[in-house]
Amino acid sequence: MTAQTNAVTATVFDPRLDLELKREVPVPPALLWRAWTEPDLLMKWFTPAPWRTTACEIDLKPGGLFRTVMEGPNGEKNDNIGCYLAVEPEKLLVFTSALGPGYRPTGNSFLTASVTFEPTAAGTLYTAVALHKDEATKTQHEEMGFHHGWSAALDQMVALTKGM
Amino acid sequence: MTAQTNAVTATVFDPRLDLELKREVPVPPALLWRAWTEPDLLMKWFTPAPWRTTACEIDLKPGGLFRTVMEGPNGEKNDNIGCYLAVEPEKLLVFTSALGPGYRPTGNSFLTASVTFEPTAAGTLYTAVALHKDEATKTQHEEMGFHHGWSAALDQMVALTKGM
Repeated sequence: MTAQTNAVTATVFDPRLDLELKREVPVPPALLWRAWTEPDLLMKWFTPAPWRTTACEIDLKPGGLFRTVMEGPNGEKNDNIGCYLAVEPEKLLVFTSALGPGYRPTGNSFLTASVTFEPTAAGTLYTAVALHKDEATKTQHEEMGFHHGWSAALDQMVALTKGM
Repeated sequence: MTAQTNAVTATVFDPRLDLELKREVPVPPALLWRAWTEPDLLMKWFTPAPWRTTACEIDLKPGGLFRTVMEGPNGEKNDNIGCYLAVEPEKLLVFTSALGPGYRPTGNSFLTASVTFEPTAAGTLYTAVALHKDEATKTQHEEMGFHHGWSAALDQMVALTKGM
């Protein structure tokens, strides 16, 4: 796989630096979009158990705040501030940890994420990509459990939205 | 002065963290816009002498590359990679050092900059803001000569565009 420009997202996937979860799921884009953009819904699926998402703030526009608080089983607490970069309803969401609300730098260059929702006969082709600044950060993210974690969260999102 | 939301830019100016150059200049927004967005023009005014801008790449869209190479009188060389966040022709330009092309994090959280161009009877009310992640970075930028540097560059831009 070589570097690919995604015309929709304006991001470029580089297999040397980036991680990807791509899966077709039996839920339409409109419901997955709601799961990603309504705090009450997002908190129900965003973190694989036993972690929980205990707070979420969403200001859904380029430059708007995306904040999640994740709590672990041993009292761990991660308060993540990010900023939306691209918002195309039911199609595309791009956000980054490197900026906060109003595009102010955060000093946390961990990732930019893009999520795309493409309608299919059976539901949605779901693609979530994490872009990193270097190979070390990609490896760190892999070792934190990117593949299992994002996949388990997607399972939770599908279970939640199938019943809606 | 307290924190102010700029409806046009979606950025929020915080006097504790940020720096601003605001001045009315006798050139219309259309020419200042060209000076900011055409590499051949930008290289002529972007750095106060004796520094020179020796290369410039502009991909003028949200997520697009903004690169400048600045060279100093003693052989210093700064290669700056950034990314446009908002592009509204003749009105607003927002870019950041924290992201590169395709919104990929750079690890350089020095600043996000917004430049606004408001037409006036005499020309343009020009406002350039540098947003920082903390007070230390603001102070560092001030000590690097923000006020003199951005003001001298604006003088050069006005001198260039008045003749166009």
